[in-house]
Amino acid sequence: MIITLNQINEMEKLYRVKLINSLSGFKSANLIGTINNKGITNLALFSSVIHVGANPPLMGILFRPLSAIRHTYDNIKETKHFTINHINKSIYQSAHQTSARYDENTSEFSACGLTEEYSQTIKAPYVKESKIKIGLEYVEEHHIEANDTVFLLGEIIEVLLPDDIVNLDGYVDIESAGTLTTSALDGYHETKLINRLSYAKTDKEIRPI
Amino acid sequence: MIITLNQINEMEKLYRVKLINSLSGFKSANLIGTINNKGITNLALFSSVIHVGANPPLMGILFRPLSAIRHTYDNIKETKHFTINHINKSIYQSAHQTSARYDENTSEFSACGLTEEYSQTIKAPYVKESKIKIGLEYVEEHHIEANDTVFLLGEIIEVLLPDDIVNLDGYVDIESAGTLTTSALDGYHETKLINRLSYAKTDKEIRPI
Repeated sequence: MIITLNQINEMEKLYRVKLINSLSGFKSANLIGTINNKGITNLALFSSVIHVGANPPLMGILFRPLSAIRHTYDNIKETKHFTINHINKSIYQSAHQTSARYDENTSEFSACGLTEEYSQTIKAPYVKESKIKIGLEYVEEHHIEANDTVFLLGEIIEVLLPDDIVNLDGYVDIESAGTLTTSALDGYHETKLINRLSYAKTDKEIRPI
Repeated sequence: MIITLNQINEMEKLYRVKLINSLSGFKSANLIGTINNKGITNLALFSSVIHVGANPPLMGILFRPLSAIRHTYDNIKETKHFTINHINKSIYQSAHQTSARYDENTSEFSACGLTEEYSQTIKAPYVKESKIKIGLEYVEEHHIEANDTVFLLGEIIEVLLPDDIVNLDGYVDIESAGTLTTSALDGYHETKLINRLSYAKTDKEIRPI
């Protein structure tokens, strides 16, 4: 079937939100850990983390409109540091629970049963129960005029992960670490590798590697 | 293990690219279809498409540095239209092959064995073999200073998808449509739903829905 922009605009709000959120495909499922200058930690679920570049190592996150309450964004602006923590099957329900509207004096770590872990380098808390954790420092942000959202960039300062999931060529086997993927607003999925494919060239067949 | 920024900066280039590309988690796997004013079509694989908002319906894509050859970006600027097409198991190898460096007079559609499909509304070609296809119009772009990449936003103008994958609440069952997810630069994965979870509230247990 064809859905037109007019039909989208006429949809009931929640129906539209779920439908449009489904369309980009599978998303990353990460918990972002932050701390404010008073020492109160925050943990929030994001499905909008993307790779931005390898040199310098950069990741980007899309934040909801400036008008909404955004403790994560405020904390990053205050302390410059944040952590990105992959979600796995043993913590996906706790991770989902962090999206409830806790007030700013409540840490989602304690409210949702997850454990803070700190490194020497990054002020913000990691999630101990996560297997792949990245510490980042604020770099720049862009205000999206079309809907008042913010695209924020951070530089990777350190990476904490198990030794045995880093392949010889640098590929990190996030599937064997149990990292999940998410769909729309509430779907959590395990993955099963079909293949890694060789670098594509115009004059050569690609092959599984 | 802990990997520091110094260690990242000292990594061999391709190793670093693969490692850093792995860290954001699972990614969307989409083919972006465009056409230029001469009528030459282009099809390119992107793992950086994200949801930006539902009202207005917006999606974002991160493009590589301005210095690289980017037919997709140039075509979008020229004609304002582009399509986003989900990758499924029957086309993932053809989709991967579009990432080879074809010259600007060669269409990846014919070179990689995929079929152009057109609607009444969008100038750019859809991929016939894809099950979930979105037609978009250029809205705005942001230049990322840290690494010279571009974050580009489009508004969803129409959506083409099978009737039977849209749930009553608006959730699109992209897994049953066979949509794949990707890891790092070259991993293609099927998914298996664990659960959809109910909307999280501070005073209520979340449950599978």
